[in-house]
Amino acid sequence: MDRRPRPQKPAFPEPFARLVDAFRRLPGIGSKTATRLAFHLLLSTEEERSSLTGALETLASQLVACKDCRNIVERDAGDPEAPLRCAICLDPSRDRTILIVVEDIQTLYSLEKSGEFRGLYHVLEGRLSPLEGVNPEKLRIKELLDRLNDPVVREVILATSPTTDGEATALYLSRLIKPMGIRVSRIAFGIPVGLEIEYVDEVTLIRAVEGRHPF
Amino acid sequence: MDRRPRPQKPAFPEPFARLVDAFRRLPGIGSKTATRLAFHLLLSTEEERSSLTGALETLASQLVACKDCRNIVERDAGDPEAPLRCAICLDPSRDRTILIVVEDIQTLYSLEKSGEFRGLYHVLEGRLSPLEGVNPEKLRIKELLDRLNDPVVREVILATSPTTDGEATALYLSRLIKPMGIRVSRIAFGIPVGLEIEYVDEVTLIRAVEGRHPF
Repeated sequence: MDRRPRPQKPAFPEPFARLVDAFRRLPGIGSKTATRLAFHLLLSTEEERSSLTGALETLASQLVACKDCRNIVERDAGDPEAPLRCAICLDPSRDRTILIVVEDIQTLYSLEKSGEFRGLYHVLEGRLSPLEGVNPEKLRIKELLDRLNDPVVREVILATSPTTDGEATALYLSRLIKPMGIRVSRIAFGIPVGLEIEYVDEVTLIRAVEGRHPF
Repeated sequence: MDRRPRPQKPAFPEPFARLVDAFRRLPGIGSKTATRLAFHLLLSTEEERSSLTGALETLASQLVACKDCRNIVERDAGDPEAPLRCAICLDPSRDRTILIVVEDIQTLYSLEKSGEFRGLYHVLEGRLSPLEGVNPEKLRIKELLDRLNDPVVREVILATSPTTDGEATALYLSRLIKPMGIRVSRIAFGIPVGLEIEYVDEVTLIRAVEGRHPF
């Protein structure tokens, strides 16, 4: 009978294992993908590796948050600390009467991808979460109210997540903004486009029914 | 009728777009994943970013190829140019009578993961491919023959791919090695373990029939 001890997972040399680990810490990258990426970079040219490290190293130093909406914008090389506005906020063709409030920059770019929203953005940088210690002071709410003092703004669309925290954030913001005489709206929740209706959960389904509109 | 021009894809600021591009050049990383990874690193701490850049930068400087099999091995910090043997080649418990020839280090680690192969490895660093200009001189064939001069080696297993180039490489090697009085074998091709037989292509199926063994 074979009584050899069960084989251990082969150990990579430490510098290689460190790269695999660094990749594995990224979201959605499992152990197998991390190893594949590390091998690819091990066997690729110095130039290929430095295009990645270079981009990573200059990321924080060359980007700054837009002073209005907090979208990312390239720093002014001559005056790196200068407060800048992003391309969207500077675009004269955008509709300055509508502001959409999003939790993060990813949502901003998802909306931009559709190309349909022509107003401006405001990135909250999170959502209220008493359990995680995120109170209103930690979000960019004061900056939002400052922007709303501009009489050009007529409507604020709240595009926080349809989660407990996201809903609480929307409710909190609506109570602050409505007294300013500005129209406040919430994005619609319903059936995702392209999804078979039978796969939709019941909470989404009832929200879709509540949000029905004339056909 | 809506005659607005079709919206363009939103442009990321250049330093961010560069990171997305660098990720997209990696195997199996599409545009969506690349963007997700870039956003994650944009919003993560300096420390998280430098764990990745640090690992990438030291990768080549801290690793060297094993002088025998070409597996990766950590450089000697005191003498970085010293030729080293990897942990497998140095392991006194390995069976030195069997050498398995693989195309790349990935295959070496896949085999190690099974923990069942107890012989030594020889990484060819590619396979013969006249069309791509890979002739025998570009592979580590001379080094393989040198290792086979050690009378302790009794068998060479050829584990190149079951492709035209991989088969040609195996055939070429077998013709060089057999006259040395060393047993040469080819790994078996057949139905992958765990796959429903109806999904197997006919070439694999006939190879599995040809490679049948007594039950």
